[in-house]
Amino acid sequence: LTEAQRIEAFLSQFERVDAPYGPGDDAALVKRAGSNGECITTDAVVEGVHFTRETFSLEDIGHKALAVNLSDLAAMGATPSWAVCALGLPASFEGRELKALGRGMAALARVHGVTLVGGNITASPALTVTMTVAGNLGPRPLLRSGARVGDEVLVSGPLGLASAGFEVLTAGAAGFERLVQAQRRPVPHLAWASVAAGFASAGLDVSDGLLQDLGHIAKASGVGIGVSSDGLALHIELLKWAGSLESARSHALSGGEDYVLAVTVPRRRLAAFDRALSRAGFSAFSIGRVTSGAQVLLDGRRAPARRGFQHASAS
Amino acid sequence: LTEAQRIEAFLSQFERVDAPYGPGDDAALVKRAGSNGECITTDAVVEGVHFTRETFSLEDIGHKALAVNLSDLAAMGATPSWAVCALGLPASFEGRELKALGRGMAALARVHGVTLVGGNITASPALTVTMTVAGNLGPRPLLRSGARVGDEVLVSGPLGLASAGFEVLTAGAAGFERLVQAQRRPVPHLAWASVAAGFASAGLDVSDGLLQDLGHIAKASGVGIGVSSDGLALHIELLKWAGSLESARSHALSGGEDYVLAVTVPRRRLAAFDRALSRAGFSAFSIGRVTSGAQVLLDGRRAPARRGFQHASAS
Repeated sequence: LTEAQRIEAFLSQFERVDAPYGPGDDAALVKRAGSNGECITTDAVVEGVHFTRETFSLEDIGHKALAVNLSDLAAMGATPSWAVCALGLPASFEGRELKALGRGMAALARVHGVTLVGGNITASPALTVTMTVAGNLGPRPLLRSGARVGDEVLVSGPLGLASAGFEVLTAGAAGFERLVQAQRRPVPHLAWASVAAGFASAGLDVSDGLLQDLGHIAKASGVGIGVSSDGLALHIELLKWAGSLESARSHALSGGEDYVLAVTVPRRRLAAFDRALSRAGFSAFSIGRVTSGAQVLLDGRRAPARRGFQHASAS
Repeated sequence: LTEAQRIEAFLSQFERVDAPYGPGDDAALVKRAGSNGECITTDAVVEGVHFTRETFSLEDIGHKALAVNLSDLAAMGATPSWAVCALGLPASFEGRELKALGRGMAALARVHGVTLVGGNITASPALTVTMTVAGNLGPRPLLRSGARVGDEVLVSGPLGLASAGFEVLTAGAAGFERLVQAQRRPVPHLAWASVAAGFASAGLDVSDGLLQDLGHIAKASGVGIGVSSDGLALHIELLKWAGSLESARSHALSGGEDYVLAVTVPRRRLAAFDRALSRAGFSAFSIGRVTSGAQVLLDGRRAPARRGFQHASAS
């Protein structure tokens, strides 16, 4: 089963949600009197699936568990507020290990003003950190469904580093610190998103691979997307690790866990978006255009059937 | 490490929460303009720890994952509103299994008006269902910290059934349906709690064993508690399974997972509390009194050092 089929099977048992954005977008929205609404997202990192204790420090794990959730809030253009954390711990887990896990999480929480309001600890055969994080929406939430034909497609940073970093760690190779850090310590693009929310017609965070994730925008918006591989920014460490332009491009197009944002912006707003990003010290990489049709095309051809990023467990 | 020590080690890395009830009570409170505030709780059920696939149906697992969270909201006197669900699934998990899991959860959600607004699916070596559930507080939240010397201690139902049910399932014994159901399908006492919140000075749900959990009220309120074992209601199936009054009492005093509520009520409000419960079709069992001092005493003696309920993994 694909992830979408699994979600569909589970959700088929529940009443449909009336909320404007329930299950299906990056985060759920809960309406609030007197505000633009609150976003809720939940995500987990699991030992042996998303990390191993050999290749991640406990600080890394604490950081990443929160970061992947904050990226989902960034994908909605929301400002994070509170979090709860459910820990599944192996029996041998010690106090100093809990402190290290908390240290990595707390440091990132501090940066983004996230308050840990509660949690739970249970036994578990595999170290599991499941977080639920809430954020406040601005006046314009960033949804998957607003892309219109002709909009420009832009991403918030270079892609493919995290999946290359996963290979570096698996191979036990030395160096390639930028790739390894992208895998261990992803940076949620919250500030970039808060600028983009004022201009974009749609957006999400690239967690499963660019082409696969753009497919979600295409489907939700009822459009096609044409990606031009010439627009991709390929980090020099990625090129060095990959060994060939072709392999580096493959990481950038189908690698996962970068937590870079992809947005669509109406062309008449592009110049203003660019100015606003520059003022905030950010940049954007234009990688394509929203088209009629319903497919994601790469350089005018059907994107390879290869699925996006699969976690360690699937390999 | 005890659970409290583990929580303390993890939380030591985070800034202290200003909220009136952050980590430590049954659920966290998030303030909301124009309301009494929102309660957030998170809890997980893990294969091999809280259930096995041999002794629980997937409907049971879906029910229990939500029920344990709803019980935490009942413990705060809150009315449930929305939930998110993070699933950790073994690779072999199939669509019909997801439907069964969802069916059990959705049925309970419908009873209590809980809307599933989002979720996440990831791979995991052990089937894990982690939920975060929110509820709206009434004008008087039920905290652990309000008990005063002289208050009566009451519980919302008979105790010890779920831990006896765990033994029945482990032994593969036939019959004892009431005990088995208490283990597989705990019923969150939300309606009882909404009545109790209007009268009680403190309260919580008994998830780790009565004596251990009353210790939390004693500590948070700076009081002692005297439990009279004569006040306990022992279910006839529990007496039959346990084989002796002594063993049945031990289940009731130290067994876990009953998700019965324990509250303290000022004596001058007892009669009104009793009338309100009766009008709603409920009853309460008086089991003791709040005392000066700082200990939980059983029949005037220090409660046995034996810890409360430990999940399967710890045995």
